[in-house]
Amino acid sequence: MIGKLNHVAIAVPDLAAATALYRDTLGAVVSEPVPQPAHGVVVVFVTLPNTKIELVHPLGEASPIAGFLAKNPNGGIHHICYEVADILAARDQLKATGARVLGDGEPKIGAHDKPVLFLHPKDFCGTLVELEQA
Amino acid sequence: MIGKLNHVAIAVPDLAAATALYRDTLGAVVSEPVPQPAHGVVVVFVTLPNTKIELVHPLGEASPIAGFLAKNPNGGIHHICYEVADILAARDQLKATGARVLGDGEPKIGAHDKPVLFLHPKDFCGTLVELEQA
Repeated sequence: MIGKLNHVAIAVPDLAAATALYRDTLGAVVSEPVPQPAHGVVVVFVTLPNTKIELVHPLGEASPIAGFLAKNPNGGIHHICYEVADILAARDQLKATGARVLGDGEPKIGAHDKPVLFLHPKDFCGTLVELEQA
Repeated sequence: MIGKLNHVAIAVPDLAAATALYRDTLGAVVSEPVPQPAHGVVVVFVTLPNTKIELVHPLGEASPIAGFLAKNPNGGIHHICYEVADILAARDQLKATGARVLGDGEPKIGAHDKPVLFLHPKDFCGTLVELEQA
């Protein structure tokens, strides 16, 4: 079912510092910050030859990553995103095994303008998993 | 400096259950368990089209991931591994910026029989980063 690893999302307390770290210290190609008000985050995309790292920082009130950063003040890996060919088929197949889909279970339009869902970390080795329709 | 994302390592409390989850529920290609006594872990490799997930479970006394699993009983993402062309050049360049290399700073032979180093999470957005010579 799962295809490519689309990205690894790292929540960061200081987006400018994290961007400089990946650009200058680690020598990677980084984007400008991309505000995503609908998701409550600002994202810098780090392009690697085979996948992406997303540096994610809270935007606005009640950002979905504010709690994570409160618990992890240095930042940390927030989630990983796998691509699937058909997100509704994937969801139904996963739910049939008892896996929990977060929220109301309906795909939302994610950061790449494609339908996404999040799966419960307790059902996936303590890892928050995003599925994105490829 | 950094090239491909070589793998994401997920520490798991139950290797058989995690393997079944990735193979049967998520439909990915998984390896047999590979004991790595020199590293104190048993690893199942999950092959994705563009990178790997490594499901890592403690092996023997004083496994380097025992403490992580004690703090994260459901498991969780333990580290990410970036490839570099020249690990000694990468190390020296990173150290010159003040970044901390774990251990004695000398590359060890890692799980793929290639030289690896680990970088201090506090210097890399709260993320344990492994560098592997490609």
